[in-house]
Amino acid sequence: MAIKLVAGIDIGGTNSRFGIVDANGKILAHNSINTTDFPDAKKMAKTIARKIADLMPNDADLVGAGIGAPNGNFFRGTIERAPNLQWKGVVPLSKYFSDALHCKTVLTNDAKAAALGEMLFGGAKGMKDFIFITLGTGLGSGIVVNGELVYGYDGFAGEVGHVIVVPGGRPCGCGRKGCLERYCSATGIVITYLDNRKKRKAKSDFIDAKYIYELALKGDKAAVDAFNYTGEMLGLALANSVAYTMPEAIFLFGGLAQAGKLIFNPVKKSFEKNLLPIYKKKVKILLSKLREDDAAILGAASLIWKEVK
Amino acid sequence: MAIKLVAGIDIGGTNSRFGIVDANGKILAHNSINTTDFPDAKKMAKTIARKIADLMPNDADLVGAGIGAPNGNFFRGTIERAPNLQWKGVVPLSKYFSDALHCKTVLTNDAKAAALGEMLFGGAKGMKDFIFITLGTGLGSGIVVNGELVYGYDGFAGEVGHVIVVPGGRPCGCGRKGCLERYCSATGIVITYLDNRKKRKAKSDFIDAKYIYELALKGDKAAVDAFNYTGEMLGLALANSVAYTMPEAIFLFGGLAQAGKLIFNPVKKSFEKNLLPIYKKKVKILLSKLREDDAAILGAASLIWKEVK
Repeated sequence: MAIKLVAGIDIGGTNSRFGIVDANGKILAHNSINTTDFPDAKKMAKTIARKIADLMPNDADLVGAGIGAPNGNFFRGTIERAPNLQWKGVVPLSKYFSDALHCKTVLTNDAKAAALGEMLFGGAKGMKDFIFITLGTGLGSGIVVNGELVYGYDGFAGEVGHVIVVPGGRPCGCGRKGCLERYCSATGIVITYLDNRKKRKAKSDFIDAKYIYELALKGDKAAVDAFNYTGEMLGLALANSVAYTMPEAIFLFGGLAQAGKLIFNPVKKSFEKNLLPIYKKKVKILLSKLREDDAAILGAASLIWKEVK
Repeated sequence: MAIKLVAGIDIGGTNSRFGIVDANGKILAHNSINTTDFPDAKKMAKTIARKIADLMPNDADLVGAGIGAPNGNFFRGTIERAPNLQWKGVVPLSKYFSDALHCKTVLTNDAKAAALGEMLFGGAKGMKDFIFITLGTGLGSGIVVNGELVYGYDGFAGEVGHVIVVPGGRPCGCGRKGCLERYCSATGIVITYLDNRKKRKAKSDFIDAKYIYELALKGDKAAVDAFNYTGEMLGLALANSVAYTMPEAIFLFGGLAQAGKLIFNPVKKSFEKNLLPIYKKKVKILLSKLREDDAAILGAASLIWKEVK
């Protein structure tokens, strides 16, 4: 019998990556294209499908393709008004891929896909209730309840990054103010650091989260304070999240999560301090076990493996 | 064949009420006892069981009993450290009742039970994703995802009343500060009203939420302002809740919810203003269709009807 394999496709604003993933979560081969080269999403799907065919071993069956995409809607298989993609309106991307690949396709947003990756192949194996948080340019999330991703009534549940934590606070790309991701993300920590510097009247050069991380390692006060503030805000937000779905664990993923104790210490301290007593010492804050480079493809492939395994 | 009936039991700090409920959600008979008369929870269960037997029609089968109780844990069938009950520690109440009634018993907290009541017999019929909010002395909640109550890893999910909305804010009975229920509940609106009066240097007599309601109907500014502030806080909190599970509707239940436009107008205004754009105009805020007097018994009975229907 031919070996069964799954394609994982991660649609990004600049690059889209895809790979062939086996039932153990091993990425056998991968490739990428420039998303911006394809003003026509259907053509992009055809191109990726051809390249996926090239990546497939001879003796294998492609049982399905999972697609992770910004503003991806699971129920409709569409990308809907994604601000960082060139395609406007509602794009039926899942259909484009199933037409081009002649296999089952499932689409959802990238953070939800990665949450499934954590469940099938990462640190959440065997868990039925957990929350997955990606700390990238923004803050993405996937919420798993009773072994299933929460999609909600319309497919767009799980936008913890857009919980308003400071009414009237920092302006957000969504048009509102004070969203969590404006404080707790690579972008958020830069704003916080620049605020800290301004208070000290220091000059601000170009900086990013990695630069702040390196300064903090050297003991720079504004940088350490920025990590502490980010962690404190995130710990409170995660403690509040527990009051909704009471997960067994919350996984942190992405660049900021790689900052080790600099971020985990203030997050855990604030989290335990702000937890309702009945939840205390029951919910773990963990670093994701997904490799940064693999998570997007692996997560997307998990959308299919979750169903066919 | 004998008609199948279910007992619904609502454990309260002062009174405990119970009734016989048919498959259509009709309460055929009901009674109550003083909870405080029973320092021994097991004896209370036996007494209630005897009285339930008295309420049963001759030709009927008792297929189960549902129990709603403060700090009730669904997984363990226990009441755990309920601050408003005289029984300390962990009480295996579901077992006491199954021993006394010789039938299947299911226990959870009162707000979760009422949420099921709304789903089976109220305004959430046919809905798979909704949130139920009780505005009483505190703020209780039951979250339904994909047709099932969310219990979480340890059975205590759904404590929206204890989301911290004002860090460092009003002291809460849970030992922390700034919990939602200190702002949005019968207790919360009294605090807000008294604050408003103090600003106007008016004398404060004994007042409760009902009194504030009557003043607000007459146009009293401090009272109307108290409703507006309560509604604004609740609307924001509910908009944030949508970012977790994206419900089709949020039901408001309890005394405050009965205040009509006085509370619904500011809630809806703040809710729509604070919703993430992808959720706008997709989530309804509705008054519960459960009758105030029936909800507790009906909700408790729903715990069984949900499983045997």
